[in-house]
Formats: sequence, structure tokens, C-alpha cells
Amino acid sequence: MFNKRMQKLGEERSVIRELFEYGNRRKQEIGAENVFDFSLGNPNIPAPAAVNGEIARLLRETPEETLHGYSSAQGLYEARAAIAKYIRVKFGVPAEPDLIYMTCGAAASLTVTLSALFEEGDECVVLAPFFPEYRVFAEGAGYRLVVAETDKNFRPDLAALENAITPKTKAVIVNSPNNPTGAVYTEGEMRALAALLEKKSKEYGTPVFLLADEPYRELTYGAEPPYLPALYKNTVVCYSWSKSLSLAGERIGYVFIPSACENAQTLFHAVCGAGRSLGFVCAPVLFQRVVAKCVGQTSDLAEYKKNRDLLYGALTSFGYECVPPEGAFYLFVRSPEASAAAFCERAKKYELLLVPSESFGVGGYVRVSYCVPRAVIEKSLPAFRALLGEYKK
Amino acid sequence: MFNKRMQKLGEERSVIRELFEYGNRRKQEIGAENVFDFSLGNPNIPAPAAVNGEIARLLRETPEETLHGYSSAQGLYEARAAIAKYIRVKFGVPAEPDLIYMTCGAAASLTVTLSALFEEGDECVVLAPFFPEYRVFAEGAGYRLVVAETDKNFRPDLAALENAITPKTKAVIVNSPNNPTGAVYTEGEMRALAALLEKKSKEYGTPVFLLADEPYRELTYGAEPPYLPALYKNTVVCYSWSKSLSLAGERIGYVFIPSACENAQTLFHAVCGAGRSLGFVCAPVLFQRVVAKCVGQTSDLAEYKKNRDLLYGALTSFGYECVPPEGAFYLFVRSPEASAAAFCERAKKYELLLVPSESFGVGGYVRVSYCVPRAVIEKSLPAFRALLGEYKK
Repeated sequence: MFNKRMQKLGEERSVIRELFEYGNRRKQEIGAENVFDFSLGNPNIPAPAAVNGEIARLLRETPEETLHGYSSAQGLYEARAAIAKYIRVKFGVPAEPDLIYMTCGAAASLTVTLSALFEEGDECVVLAPFFPEYRVFAEGAGYRLVVAETDKNFRPDLAALENAITPKTKAVIVNSPNNPTGAVYTEGEMRALAALLEKKSKEYGTPVFLLADEPYRELTYGAEPPYLPALYKNTVVCYSWSKSLSLAGERIGYVFIPSACENAQTLFHAVCGAGRSLGFVCAPVLFQRVVAKCVGQTSDLAEYKKNRDLLYGALTSFGYECVPPEGAFYLFVRSPEASAAAFCERAKKYELLLVPSESFGVGGYVRVSYCVPRAVIEKSLPAFRALLGEYKK
Repeated sequence: MFNKRMQKLGEERSVIRELFEYGNRRKQEIGAENVFDFSLGNPNIPAPAAVNGEIARLLRETPEETLHGYSSAQGLYEARAAIAKYIRVKFGVPAEPDLIYMTCGAAASLTVTLSALFEEGDECVVLAPFFPEYRVFAEGAGYRLVVAETDKNFRPDLAALENAITPKTKAVIVNSPNNPTGAVYTEGEMRALAALLEKKSKEYGTPVFLLADEPYRELTYGAEPPYLPALYKNTVVCYSWSKSLSLAGERIGYVFIPSACENAQTLFHAVCGAGRSLGFVCAPVLFQRVVAKCVGQTSDLAEYKKNRDLLYGALTSFGYECVPPEGAFYLFVRSPEASAAAFCERAKKYELLLVPSESFGVGGYVRVSYCVPRAVIEKSLPAFRALLGEYKK
């Protein structure tokens, strides 16, 4: 009687969200301090003081009859102008306010862009492991999802990628810093990927678009992710302030179409049309006003590096295997047994909430989100040690 | 190369939004005080003081690391519990927090509900004249839109509605108080509609769902709209605080599935799945917290009644024809020439921005949004008079 796909998506939820809800129940049962919840990418570092300061200023100074009113569908000009200027100055890439579309966060950035690009029969390529919702968003827009493996260190594998691209490939999603592996792709790797996409676009006579999903751009620990529009003209940037400004619940981000992009203006129209069709109307306006002032600022991201160093150091010292993450706030740890799901179930006995890797498109790993209070990490370490001990008996 | 439907939707925009943008340009050219912009349903009455007061309190009192973080996908429990309680007390209808899904406003309420219900081949019935985005949302979800006429006073015409319903009809959208006519359907009219839907559901062996699109529920000037879940069990309420709390730009609303609804729990899952697929993640969390405290409050809606009385009185005294509106903040005025679009073009010469009715599914009318400052209405009256005068020469 209802839509089977939607019903299934709602019943399963995402594995991650399901675990998050389990964790909330468990915290009520045994106390929050006794549950080591590494399930969700929900920033634990507060937004910078400038965010709440700006909200307070807006409440005082904006005419009250306009403060909470509609913006135009593409967003407030002041927000789009501030973002365009930031992109020009920071990355040296031409950017126009009129090719920026404000969104309800990264998920919306992706669904409107994917829907705008989609034509019947199109395929969308992702690099495994990948954020599980890519499948949901791409299939929701009508694409067949095609998965390209990465190498054993989760670096892009050009041969595998070339294999995955067909004349039907409309888009390739790249996520760097990467969720779940923490990999940050180098400029060399991205130049090679750009060259491949250019070759394939030429070969097929129609562009393959690169979707740069960048919610973690600022969360790096040394490595500097290259700005993809500078390397490949048919790039669309899908951005969100969920992590950089710790505004995950406020749903604020943008789509940026470089003017060098083929038929940029037409694509922008299609993005606006997709936003309209999916029911977005406009991005939340108070936070459009906030980011207009706070673009380029970040939360105190150094805290995540301290978490990473502590957790990565301890887990590897216990004997866990893990490629050192260069960005984002996840460790992608090899499961000590073949089934990551079974390992995660066992971890629950120690009140450790870890996300099994199957939904990320690879088996045998778990994702550990370290955007949690330091005390949680410290208190969890004996549990991690004891859990691995079970496999050494 | 792009999605043709999305491209077209983005290029046309909605007629309403297009006029709104035209108005903004015109205001820059000749001064805002000289443009009589009746195009958009953007509340001009500020949110009640409680809204900004609550935001200020949240900034002071909520732990800063949780204030802006994700809520669960269906929304904060505190918000859903407050809404459920409000529905139980106000309308005497059983309501559970676990069958309420917080959304990014009415548009999202509609797109997730329509997507949740949709199965291949389904049709969606609307009563003309209707909010033009119903077509966009319904067709976006896959439906064929079927239009049922109303009578000459814009009251539901049961025979026309019965004619429009087929075995493929999954949903009927009812919008009362109505955009664009201001009609408020009576309990008698809605009981008759409910009886028809029950008869048809029985006849076809599968329920026809009633979608109650209720952003204008509180904006009435005497008439009390009946609560549809009390009259028809398979009703889904799509609500938004855009108009009642003047929060149009903040994108906050909900979907309410009564527990009496057939397979309510399954439908709720499908709604959650649709939200996930369309890219909503969660409703903006600061405003979830705000509405949890402000549910049942409204802006100073009496201002709209004063606007209505002034504008309706003046326009009809000049000779315009218009059914007196009982709710919402629109006059639906008969065009003095056959083509409403031509009339609206002529109105622009007088700096009057009116929306032609063609996109609402009927010809020969214009929509006049009177959610504007009193002074705009007062200053516009000579223009309205002169405009009609052109037809009397």
C-alpha cells in the first residue's frame, strides 16, 4: 500500500542511526558515562563563540518582521556573496554568487545535485568504502550505483575507477577527507583522477561530473586536501558546515558550481529545480545569515586531533590494525574476525558502540567516530583492550 | 545533459517566486515604498516575542556542545511530545509522539508524505484552484496529478471530486484555509468529503489517503476549520509554522499520522525512509527546540484580518469581484479581462504585483497576498482603482 523502497529505508534506518538510538536507550539504562558511543559523526566540540554571538546580534539588530522570513530559493545574496569571496580568496578559483545554491546541509547538497544531473539510465560511481547514504541518495535520484574499490590503504585505485566508468556514468562522488577511513587524497592522486575523467569524458563525448562532497574539508591533521574545481572543471562542490562549525542539526550547506563547468548556468537552474521538486524551498534563513558572517571560521578542531592521537595510539598499541587517519574524525579499524557485524555485537557487551563496515561497501572493518568527549575515549580504552583480548585466548 | 524536468522547473521557477524577484529588482530601481508587492505569502507580522525569547534562552541554557547537534531523524522527542499533547488537547484526537515526524516546513511535509505513499501508477487529486507546487511535488514523487474543480464560490464539488477519483487514486490533498481563495471548508463539507473517500476506499478495496495541508490552520477570521483526522481516519496532517509563527524562512513543520490510520506504523516508517531518501536528515534543530516551547502560540494574526477588511472592502467598492475570504491571507480576485496573465502585466505598470491564477489551475483570476504592511495596502488603493478604470473607458 506504501512505497516499498521508502518503507524499507525507514524500517532499517541507517545502521549508524540505529546504533545511535540503541546507544541513547542504553545510556538511560546504565548512565551515559558508562556507554562508549562511537557511532555517530555528531560533533562534540561546540560551535565557535562567533556563531552564538552572531545569532544574538541578529536577534537584536535584524528587523523582526524580516528576520525569519523566506529568502529567495537559491539563498540570501549576502550568504552567497560571502561564500563566493571566500572560495576566490582561499582557493583562487573564480566563483560567482549566482552559481551558489544554499542548502539544508550536505545531504541536501547531494540529493539536489544528483537529481539535477540525472537522466534515465545514468550511473553514479563511488569509491569504497563510502558513506552509506550515497547509495540511498543516488538510487533515490534514479541512478544505478557503481562501486569502485580503493587499494588496501584506501587510496584511489585508478584502474578500478576506470573499470567502473562507462558511457552511462554521469557522476563520480569523491569524499576527502574521507568518511569512514580518514584518508585525505593528495593533489597528485586527484590530478590523476581528473585526467582519467577528462579522458573518459572525451572518449564518450559527454562530461563525467565530479561531485566533491566536502563536509570534512577543514578537519585535517597536516594534509591539505586539494580544491577539486582547480583540478577538474566539471566539478560540483557539495559543502556543509555540519562539522566545520559544529552545526550538524541546523542543516546548512551549499552547492557551488564553478563558472568553468560545462553549461554552468543550465546546471544551476537544474539544481534550483531539483531543490524545488524535493521540497526544500530555501535553506534555514537564520543560519544563512550566520554563515554569511562566519564562513571560514571553524570550531576548535585541534580537539579532534588530540582525540585521534589518543585513540589511534592506544588501539594500535593494543594490537588493533588501522591505517592512520589524516582527516575527518573516524578511525577505520580492521575487525579481528571476518564478520564486522559479529565483532560489533561482541563490542556491545563492553558497551562499545562501533559501526560495522558492511554498509560502507566493504567487509571486515568497523568505524569508530572519535568526535566524543576525551573522557569517553579514556574510559573506553580498557574495554577496547578487553574486547580484543577475547580473540587472543 | 541534465535532468530536463529539473532544468525546466529551475528555469521557470514558480510564477510566484519569479514575480517576487522582479519585485525586489523593481524596489531597488524606484524605492521599496513605490512597489506594491502582493506576490508572496511571506508573513509581514513578526514572530511572537516568545520565539526570539526562547532562542535567547536556548543560547544561554542549553549545553553548547549539544545545542546545534543532530536530532534523531524523526526529530527531538520533546518537540514531538509537545505537538502530540497539543493535538490531543486542542482537537481531541489521539496522537503519539512516535507517529510525528519533524520536517523542514510544509513543502517537505508534503514531499515526504507523497513519496512515502507513492506506488507505480498512483494518482493524486487536488481541488482547483490549488497551490501550484502541489503539481511539482506530486509529479516529482511520480504521481499523475488529477484536478477536481470546485464550484463558483470555490467550495468543494463532491460530484467533480467523485469523478476525479479512480482505483489509482492514492491521495487527495485538501488545503483549508485555502491558498489562493481564502476558503475555509465547513465541517459539513468535510464530513461529506470523508464519506465519499470512505465509499471509494471500500469500493476499490484500498484506502484513499487524505493529506491535510495545514499551514494556514490558525489564520481564520471567524470560521473554524474542522480537524480532518477527527472526520476521516486515513488522514495525514502536513503542518508548518511558516505562517502561524511567521517562521517561513526557518523551515520547520511536521507530519502527523493518527494512530487510527491504516498501517500507521508502517506509513510512519515510509515517511522516515522518504525523508532519508530526499536528503532531509533532520529538521533544523534550534527551531525544533523553539516550537517544542511555542506550539499553540501565534503571531498577532488579527493584523491580517485588518488587512483583509481594508483591502477586500476597498477593492469590492471599486468594482472588483471577489469571494470574501474566510482565512489565510489571500484575496482571489476575478480578472477584468479573460487572460489573468495579461491583467497582471497591465498591473505592473501601476507597480502592482499580482499573481495570475493560471498556475493555480484555473484561469481568469489573480491572487493578492495581503500579508504586507498596512501602508502598502493604503498606498496601493489608488493604483488598484486606476487599473480597473482602464477597463471602464
